Amino acid sequence: MLHPHRYFDPDPATRAIAAALYARVADLPLVCPHGHVDPRLLADNQPFPDPAALLVIPDHYITRMLYSQGVGLERLGIPTRDGTPVESDPKRIWQLFAEHFHLFRATPSGAWLRHELEGVFGVTEPLSGATAPAIYDHLEACLRQPEFLPRSLYERFRIEVLCTTDAAGDPLESHRAMREEGWGNVRPTFRPDLAVTLSHPGWRAEIDRIGAASGESMSTYRSYIHALEHRRAFFKHMGATATDHAVAVPYTERLDETEAARLYERALAGRVPQHDSDRFGAHMLMEMARMSVDDGLTMQLHPGSFRNHNTQLFERFGPDRGCDIPLATEYTRNLHALLNAYGNAPGFTLVLFTLDETVYSRELAPLAGHYPAVVLGPPWWFHDSIEGMLRFRHAATETAGFYNTAGFNDDTRAFPSIPARHDVARRVDATFLAQLVTRHILDEADAHDVIVDLSAKLVKQVYRLS
Amino acid sequence: MLHPHRYFDPDPATRAIAAALYARVADLPLVCPHGHVDPRLLADNQPFPDPAALLVIPDHYITRMLYSQGVGLERLGIPTRDGTPVESDPKRIWQLFAEHFHLFRATPSGAWLRHELEGVFGVTEPLSGATAPAIYDHLEACLRQPEFLPRSLYERFRIEVLCTTDAAGDPLESHRAMREEGWGNVRPTFRPDLAVTLSHPGWRAEIDRIGAASGESMSTYRSYIHALEHRRAFFKHMGATATDHAVAVPYTERLDETEAARLYERALAGRVPQHDSDRFGAHMLMEMARMSVDDGLTMQLHPGSFRNHNTQLFERFGPDRGCDIPLATEYTRNLHALLNAYGNAPGFTLVLFTLDETVYSRELAPLAGHYPAVVLGPPWWFHDSIEGMLRFRHAATETAGFYNTAGFNDDTRAFPSIPARHDVARRVDATFLAQLVTRHILDEADAHDVIVDLSAKLVKQVYRLS
Amino acid sequence: MLHPHRYFDPDPATRAIAAALYARVADLPLVCPHGHVDPRLLADNQPFPDPAALLVIPDHYITRMLYSQGVGLERLGIPTRDGTPVESDPKRIWQLFAEHFHLFRATPSGAWLRHELEGVFGVTEPLSGATAPAIYDHLEACLRQPEFLPRSLYERFRIEVLCTTDAAGDPLESHRAMREEGWGNVRPTFRPDLAVTLSHPGWRAEIDRIGAASGESMSTYRSYIHALEHRRAFFKHMGATATDHAVAVPYTERLDETEAARLYERALAGRVPQHDSDRFGAHMLMEMARMSVDDGLTMQLHPGSFRNHNTQLFERFGPDRGCDIPLATEYTRNLHALLNAYGNAPGFTLVLFTLDETVYSRELAPLAGHYPAVVLGPPWWFHDSIEGMLRFRHAATETAGFYNTAGFNDDTRAFPSIPARHDVARRVDATFLAQLVTRHILDEADAHDVIVDLSAKLVKQVYRLS
Repeated sequence: MLHPHRYFDPDPATRAIAAALYARVADLPLVCPHGHVDPRLLADNQPFPDPAALLVIPDHYITRMLYSQGVGLERLGIPTRDGTPVESDPKRIWQLFAEHFHLFRATPSGAWLRHELEGVFGVTEPLSGATAPAIYDHLEACLRQPEFLPRSLYERFRIEVLCTTDAAGDPLESHRAMREEGWGNVRPTFRPDLAVTLSHPGWRAEIDRIGAASGESMSTYRSYIHALEHRRAFFKHMGATATDHAVAVPYTERLDETEAARLYERALAGRVPQHDSDRFGAHMLMEMARMSVDDGLTMQLHPGSFRNHNTQLFERFGPDRGCDIPLATEYTRNLHALLNAYGNAPGFTLVLFTLDETVYSRELAPLAGHYPAVVLGPPWWFHDSIEGMLRFRHAATETAGFYNTAGFNDDTRAFPSIPARHDVARRVDATFLAQLVTRHILDEADAHDVIVDLSAKLVKQVYRLS
Repeated sequence: MLHPHRYFDPDPATRAIAAALYARVADLPLVCPHGHVDPRLLADNQPFPDPAALLVIPDHYITRMLYSQGVGLERLGIPTRDGTPVESDPKRIWQLFAEHFHLFRATPSGAWLRHELEGVFGVTEPLSGATAPAIYDHLEACLRQPEFLPRSLYERFRIEVLCTTDAAGDPLESHRAMREEGWGNVRPTFRPDLAVTLSHPGWRAEIDRIGAASGESMSTYRSYIHALEHRRAFFKHMGATATDHAVAVPYTERLDETEAARLYERALAGRVPQHDSDRFGAHMLMEMARMSVDDGLTMQLHPGSFRNHNTQLFERFGPDRGCDIPLATEYTRNLHALLNAYGNAPGFTLVLFTLDETVYSRELAPLAGHYPAVVLGPPWWFHDSIEGMLRFRHAATETAGFYNTAGFNDDTRAFPSIPARHDVARRVDATFLAQLVTRHILDEADAHDVIVDLSAKLVKQVYRLS
Repeated sequence: MLHPHRYFDPDPATRAIAAALYARVADLPLVCPHGHVDPRLLADNQPFPDPAALLVIPDHYITRMLYSQGVGLERLGIPTRDGTPVESDPKRIWQLFAEHFHLFRATPSGAWLRHELEGVFGVTEPLSGATAPAIYDHLEACLRQPEFLPRSLYERFRIEVLCTTDAAGDPLESHRAMREEGWGNVRPTFRPDLAVTLSHPGWRAEIDRIGAASGESMSTYRSYIHALEHRRAFFKHMGATATDHAVAVPYTERLDETEAARLYERALAGRVPQHDSDRFGAHMLMEMARMSVDDGLTMQLHPGSFRNHNTQLFERFGPDRGCDIPLATEYTRNLHALLNAYGNAPGFTLVLFTLDETVYSRELAPLAGHYPAVVLGPPWWFHDSIEGMLRFRHAATETAGFYNTAGFNDDTRAFPSIPARHDVARRVDATFLAQLVTRHILDEADAHDVIVDLSAKLVKQVYRLS
């Protein structure tokens, strides 16, 4: 099923070079600086319950595609917020998925799943309605064996480090447990989105949680800032090397402290208008950059997603169900304040991501090709795909070069897909480099250096993981 | 002239696969769910007057390119609105066109025309100033023969169904005549743009026409809505399976009925401000979606054209003369209201088109890959081209898959170009699929399924034409 | 080092065709209608001081990339505005550059530099920290020889014409000197950006300079307009065939004369608000187009750069240091006023450039494919690269054709890179055309015509240089 030369360019000369480049990095350990694996998975190391719970139900890349073709999420076993019953038979869910597997032709989810089935579980039959029951039984039998426990897979996958994403108020119990146990290299990432979004219904509860964890009263803006600094120090103590920030619009603006305090206090007293919440968020991006300059945590920015676009679906099933839709996103003007204040600061690193591919060549590569602080994250979400990664390299490389990019991250909550995702990235980089070599744009020897840099060196450098 | 492997990838392995895939669908009947052929052409079945009237004068893709190089539209025989005389000798018009045929190198108009000349008329000489007179004479001789009558060509082209585009107030006389006669499969499409644009100078006349046709007084907003429902039912009775909507900005917003009625009544009393007209249009998109949920007509949305950008040209020659220029277009926020109200409705289909290719991967594919109602129309207008179609498949497929796309439509008023346009689309799909096969992204057997789906199955399903 | 088939497509059939097409134009003289070479270089014909002063210090494409990786501009010998001392040893600057040369892998700067080193100076060793000293010594020895004087290189490069870019108030002394001497074909270009930007701190001094040069009092708007007309006539007398205009946003709007005069007088009396300055600039684009209709100077528009984005760097080192960042740019609505007024005017040519690649297919190609006045400039700045030029041809050709494009310009202040830049452009055009030929989109004979048109004919026609 899995062709050894998959994703490489069909031109024979280019393909041979790509294969040689890929061979150089195929077996390198996996460095995973950004993702959404639940740390309890590895702290608790319990068996995965069943194939549907492992591969279908939690993967919104898969469930959204089935939903787009009229398959209700109830039939896929997605739990409802109000507890209305949904399909509970994992075999039926698996069967339904398998019968629609043609929807994933030429998609990254299809490629990853084929890789997982063959590479992780040894399944060599194509998945279809007809083969679904036998494959289900095979997977289920695997999951009962110790070599398919989360930690066994972590080791089999050769994960060198795995970073999770954690709210600012998270007590990081699983991380603490693993550190105390001395197992693995799982690190938290500081994500304060909730804590800086004054208009969010959950803001106050998160503030209280942060106050309790940091010993701050949270009754003033100063106390709030101190609490966030305290939490960052705690995350760093627990192994974090980075922060992460998701916003709809990456607008940045420094408020004077009086104004920031006024907005903070209005939020404590009740809810603030959306416009003021947005300004406070823009200000807090400045503050987060300032803190990164101080504490050395790499700052990641993931802007441009219209979360929960389908209100009906959100109300019934909650967030992260595949109905987040990208927005056109502007960086040049929006990041002007932040980059003017901190873009030249020694040791500060800002990793920019985007869901708007038009900014690769227009804004992101020029920013990364100038500001010492800016590096480009790999293609994100919808664009973490064969064509998406090729487009990124084609659009960004001539202006940003290779050395202002941050290598790969898998950004996944689907733990068993991690090796497949890294493998696709390495194959695509090998393909891109081979195309440069056969066109005499890059020397072959240099390409061998670059593939190692892209697969291992840059990511460790950008995320201080070496 | 026409190479059998034209448009395929030059890599020999890829080309062989593309040729096999293309062979699978090359001779399938043509399904034409959206276009601008005048139904009188087929109802009346009169001979085409001459080569210039057939191939040059009505084709604004051709006349705009000549105009861009300084050839006045008068010299091309385009009639003026004020009746000022223009060139009337079709031989001179043809000669002028032929002398400028190099302008169409590497353009779709060039490719279609070469296909028409050779495929429809058996011309194997390249068109140039030198060959123009002989080719003219040959074409003119053809047009006098019965096998070049519109219906003969319709049959020779193997058209399975041809949908026209018709104003809401159109009496559909030609459609009625063909249905009564029992000839062909020509269907209307309900296009109410004029009827929902309160600020248009022709709005009132269209309202009166709709009132007369539907027996409604049109004196209230309720009556207006009933009249539109009535007209939709009439179109459906005449064979329509779809509606079509062209707007500059695809903004959607539901007004409460009092407000909608107020705007409607202001328009009846005189002209409304542009802003109110736009809001009413945004509301009417909601109403059109609501009606589609009820009556099952597939809803098409064609946004983002700045019509009649060249005011001088518009005033002298009228609309559709090649001076419509695309606009950047936003879908995620603009369609939020409509998709929240109807995007999950069973049986509702919304086909989205765009002139802004940046939205393929950023907005359209994510919307189609989530909402059950949304499917993606093929590349439109300027992008209905070899590179344009490749860009669409490359940008949209990984997120939307193949099965949230609507196959091809030719969207043409140039009747004899229909086979050429479908042929290009099939060749480009074969090329794209072959590239996936040689890169081991898609199995060859699956590619054979997909090419049939793209050429025949999806379009019938999306437009309820099976 | 320099492979004869570099940049061509790796497919052997396509490569052979590309090589034949390239051979057709490889040795054609260089027509340079737009660039930033200092005319004193050729008027004075003094030896270049040293390799760092020639190839590193003045090239902000190179210094920005080093800066993005933490190399301070002081260490690269960039002079500070306040005279703070910077590195003054050219050997150390060269060494630092060479040690970072891997940053330029797969970038146009890397390609141009390799071409310059081998093609101009005969260096065949790859540049690195290890080879830097020997290469430095070789270059320095070359620069002492008469065949490396600016005029010798001008002749060796086979430059047919070289246009510079000059402020409206510039006395054009170097141009006058060369004309009087009868040497070369160096022409000025009229660039009135400073003169039309009421809010610029240097506006008043430029106005005074223009007044002195034109004999106008500049005390009224009328006098100002007359002075600009006078300067255009002087530039034309000095050989200019074109004007150039850089704006952040290409908004155009005709003010009535009273309003324009009011804004002008407010500016004379002190500084005007930014909004009024922008409106005046929009009006002056209209005026510049009007004057071009009258005097036949080709009008170039370079919009969409956020100049001096990094304020700290700008304050320390001044403009043109690599911290200009592109902006999303809209043309369809912004140019509506200008194109409606002058887009159909006989003999008027407007060359549009962009830093926003999304407009190629969406706005620029449709505008160029309709308006007689509009032609498309080659990919600009960040996009003047192998991939950037391929993207331009792929995106624009099907709608604009080849004959609404303006050939190549090198747009450089790096004099010795001129042949490398033209060579890359010719190779990329050969590659693009060869891809069309092997896909049977373009006949090979036609491709041979087109490559000559793209390399020589169109640029002379658009810039009236034949």
